[in-house]
Amino acid sequence: MFKQFFEPESSTYTYLLGCDKTRLAVLIDPVASEVDTYIAELESTGCKLVYTMETHVHADHVTGADLLRQRLGSKSVVHRDAGAMCADLLVTDGVHLIVGTLDIEVRHTPGHTNGCVSYVCGDKVFTGDALLIDGCGRTDFQMGNAGQLYDSIHQKIFTLPDDTKVYPGHDYHGRLHSTVGQERLHNQRLGRGRSREDFIALMSELKLSYPGKIDIALPANQACGRLS
Amino acid sequence: MFKQFFEPESSTYTYLLGCDKTRLAVLIDPVASEVDTYIAELESTGCKLVYTMETHVHADHVTGADLLRQRLGSKSVVHRDAGAMCADLLVTDGVHLIVGTLDIEVRHTPGHTNGCVSYVCGDKVFTGDALLIDGCGRTDFQMGNAGQLYDSIHQKIFTLPDDTKVYPGHDYHGRLHSTVGQERLHNQRLGRGRSREDFIALMSELKLSYPGKIDIALPANQACGRLS
Repeated sequence: MFKQFFEPESSTYTYLLGCDKTRLAVLIDPVASEVDTYIAELESTGCKLVYTMETHVHADHVTGADLLRQRLGSKSVVHRDAGAMCADLLVTDGVHLIVGTLDIEVRHTPGHTNGCVSYVCGDKVFTGDALLIDGCGRTDFQMGNAGQLYDSIHQKIFTLPDDTKVYPGHDYHGRLHSTVGQERLHNQRLGRGRSREDFIALMSELKLSYPGKIDIALPANQACGRLS
Repeated sequence: MFKQFFEPESSTYTYLLGCDKTRLAVLIDPVASEVDTYIAELESTGCKLVYTMETHVHADHVTGADLLRQRLGSKSVVHRDAGAMCADLLVTDGVHLIVGTLDIEVRHTPGHTNGCVSYVCGDKVFTGDALLIDGCGRTDFQMGNAGQLYDSIHQKIFTLPDDTKVYPGHDYHGRLHSTVGQERLHNQRLGRGRSREDFIALMSELKLSYPGKIDIALPANQACGRLS
């Protein structure tokens, strides 16, 4: 079972993955404002939420991890380096989390933030804000680093089979997913054989505004979404 | 699939739990010197080792976690507070790790050390050095605390059904396992309605020698068994 949700204010994608056999499920990057929608979906499909899995500590929306933990007893998963010691399960590169017949591999893909991960499950990769469709996450805050992002994407995502489906953390143009082959060849920032040097220069020249929600979202997400 | 191993030098018990359906397996508290034995058992049963799970950072033997990680690609699991940042997966109270049909619940049971956990799987609880058969772990090093150990055992282990089998981290008298009911009623340090106050007094009066291997084992285990 697989479902993609969209939260329009921050253009965030959230993903529900469920094991058809055991009815155990996980949510990748749930948004606090959408928790009722996720719960309704879980109820209608008879699934039990085991983990909420963050691709990173977000700067643009508040995670639903803590609300879901309180309401459903799910446990929050985040990379050890993300600075979210509120989490129940701290993961690192190469760890597999098993949920019924689902096998979810953690790949550490820092660069947008230092604690970014991508989750590989079957023929899908959930890239968070590391690799976006025809783009990538910004690298100018939260210990972002353009060279590191280039290495992460080349070593941990572009090495997956070309037909692996890429499900990003956001899309601002209505696109739902892409493939590794498509992005490896045609991503305007990382494809077309662009060198690491060129990528670093390109990222340093982006003139990006200060993220509107970061001062609320960051401390909240470091506490798994608990608003103080 | 379930097998109990014994390492005689430190009288340590190690446990292999395998899912008969998926042939995925975990080892609880593997000892470095015994790694070949575990691998032979895994091979003969056709099992793939997913996790090595520490009940705590041991002072009396060196864990096989790192050797097994190197040889089999297994990932090491330890409590977040254990001070073993070498681990791949840092867990906290209430987290469930799922391995095929096995559902392993983490219960934080500090007191022997601050990062001690017990693992509950079906009708078994693996208590490490928190609760031993007719005894308990010492509380005089590694941030041990007798009051905390009393609370851990009463709140997290004695609340399990009486027929839950107790598998400890050690036994020095050849006993293989016990039950929650047996220990709750008859454990000479914790059973028979002994009060928290009495237990703290009893633990403070033990005159225990300095653990022979602690100066080697502790730093090695904080590095998941890597000997420098």
